[in-house]
Amino acid sequence: MNTKAYGAYAGDQPLEPMQITRRASGAHDVQIAIAYCGVCHSDIHQVRAEWEGTLYPCVPGHEIVGRVTAVGGQVKGYRIGDLVGVGCIVDSCRHCDDCESGLENYCDHMVGTYNFPTADAPGHTLGGYAQQIVVHERYVLRIRHPQQQLAAVAPLLCAGITTWSPLRHWNAGPGKKVGVVGIGGLGHMGIKLAHALGAHVVAFTTSESKREAAKALGADEVVVSRNAEEMAAHLKSFDLILNTVAMPHDLDAFLTLLKRDGNLTLVGAPASAHPSPNVFNLIMKRRTLAGSMIGGIPETQEMLDFCAERDIVADIELIRADEINAAYERMLKGDVKYRFVIDIASLDA
Amino acid sequence: MNTKAYGAYAGDQPLEPMQITRRASGAHDVQIAIAYCGVCHSDIHQVRAEWEGTLYPCVPGHEIVGRVTAVGGQVKGYRIGDLVGVGCIVDSCRHCDDCESGLENYCDHMVGTYNFPTADAPGHTLGGYAQQIVVHERYVLRIRHPQQQLAAVAPLLCAGITTWSPLRHWNAGPGKKVGVVGIGGLGHMGIKLAHALGAHVVAFTTSESKREAAKALGADEVVVSRNAEEMAAHLKSFDLILNTVAMPHDLDAFLTLLKRDGNLTLVGAPASAHPSPNVFNLIMKRRTLAGSMIGGIPETQEMLDFCAERDIVADIELIRADEINAAYERMLKGDVKYRFVIDIASLDA
Ligand SMILES: [Zn+2]
Ligand SMILES: [Zn+2]
Ligand SMILES: [Zn+2]
Ligand SMILES: [Zn+2]
Repeated sequence: MNTKAYGAYAGDQPLEPMQITRRASGAHDVQIAIAYCGVCHSDIHQVRAEWEGTLYPCVPGHEIVGRVTAVGGQVKGYRIGDLVGVGCIVDSCRHCDDCESGLENYCDHMVGTYNFPTADAPGHTLGGYAQQIVVHERYVLRIRHPQQQLAAVAPLLCAGITTWSPLRHWNAGPGKKVGVVGIGGLGHMGIKLAHALGAHVVAFTTSESKREAAKALGADEVVVSRNAEEMAAHLKSFDLILNTVAMPHDLDAFLTLLKRDGNLTLVGAPASAHPSPNVFNLIMKRRTLAGSMIGGIPETQEMLDFCAERDIVADIELIRADEINAAYERMLKGDVKYRFVIDIASLDA
Repeated sequence: MNTKAYGAYAGDQPLEPMQITRRASGAHDVQIAIAYCGVCHSDIHQVRAEWEGTLYPCVPGHEIVGRVTAVGGQVKGYRIGDLVGVGCIVDSCRHCDDCESGLENYCDHMVGTYNFPTADAPGHTLGGYAQQIVVHERYVLRIRHPQQQLAAVAPLLCAGITTWSPLRHWNAGPGKKVGVVGIGGLGHMGIKLAHALGAHVVAFTTSESKREAAKALGADEVVVSRNAEEMAAHLKSFDLILNTVAMPHDLDAFLTLLKRDGNLTLVGAPASAHPSPNVFNLIMKRRTLAGSMIGGIPETQEMLDFCAERDIVADIELIRADEINAAYERMLKGDVKYRFVIDIASLDA
């Protein structure tokens, strides 16, 4: 099956319209007409070959929502017309401990939605900046939000689950003080979700100008992290700090804000290393520094259902596909509130 | 009360005999005739002013065992003649969350056994290289080992609890694969305790020559960490790695050996920073890097009782007090199997 897409032929070239093929639906496959696709920072890094091993042509996009247009004969969970989503994962080994625990995101054989080897043409996966996608039903999510929220649901598939998974794993909830560092695509979802989970939420930003916006998202308090006095007022008080900032920065500034057994989870990896954290800050309060990578399929469904029940979506700016290169430039300047989402209908324009 | 001790008057001077005073026993105090005191690496750092803020005269020693010689009127738990121990902690606030959780080691007002401010003369605590000590009964441990093992029990009070606490906190036990990095004073206890807890124990050493010794201590396997092939055979397989090495080294070599949700706990802090760990190694398997500092009073008692039941003690070399300066030099060369213990009776010689 041929489908229109938007992608790049090389790391130093802009994204442009292209034709790609999708495999014919297998017995367990769901074919999806993509309505919207969110734009993640990973898309920029990958398509511009800033990370290792980008395969071209590269079609990014792993915040995919749309409607089922066909199902294979063995598909149990989905029917034509269903609203569905696809996130960062389109396959995995399905039998390792990670897969059996519903943590396919940690499977050694996880297949990412784009730029991972696959038997399908052209030999690597192609993402959601496209009109159609075909995915094994195990990796398809049900969307229970109303149709009119669909565009704003898209970012839940990466930004949402990437923050939800560590918030749940580290027990964010009532009685817990949770920090969220960085108020961008990930951070704005982190604030919304931590707030909805019932935690006391403190947003950290380097920019005084984001104070009111962070409160509007659900932060109980906002700390400008460059203000030493404001930071000191929160020493040894956090159960969990979720750090969404991928630029190299001083982790000790946040480690020291954790109480005993507190955890600092990083969901972004910097291109060059953070300054080495001071081991004393880990030892003194039995603190932990952790990482977390997206989330598994069952917890993604859990998050989507939680958000549908509570009317939670991302704050987005809807763009046409031909605005994607300009959108990347704005993202690199932090100039988006808080996630661009491509209206895939614009691919037909 | 005057008592003989061994300590230093300045960071650049050797330890020598000195007279110190201990406070008169208060209502809740236990007075102890010290029989043996273990020699910890911290003792060297502190007495030589390699860490900040050493107060002189400095009498080190926080692996203290002996016999009760007097008790205050309100003391409930101890009687004259009891075999007891004192570890790294002689006081704390007693009412914070840490103290109420039995984790006095994390109390912001913890008073260490030496070099911490106190109302007693000379204004800072003096440790166990001495004939007598007076300690509030809350911080006194009962020793159930037989008298003839007493010298070898002393190192349990720091080296033992420092490894026991993270082993227990991170659930070392049957079905778990636990690594212990470094086979010194701490590491040799880590191996013994992890083995006794029922874990599959892998000892890591830089020295081929320690292979047999590590097995004798209870390691199921020994890996020479400089051998890349040996290391690679253990990729993504550990639940917990306890790292006792305080020299700066590559933490990624051990992080990559952890399975999903695996934890690398550091119990030593290097004087200069470790190379910054690669955040991808934390993110990829939701791994955690943690610290741990000694342990609380209840868990120290638990560890002592566990060791008494199973006949576990440290491997020691008994020395006279006047051998302490030479012993320090040998420790710095790693030339001790595995802990020096001072025979306090030698102070009378
Ligand atoms: Zn993403
Ligand atoms: Zn798997
Ligand atoms: Zn010690
Ligand atoms: Zn306390």
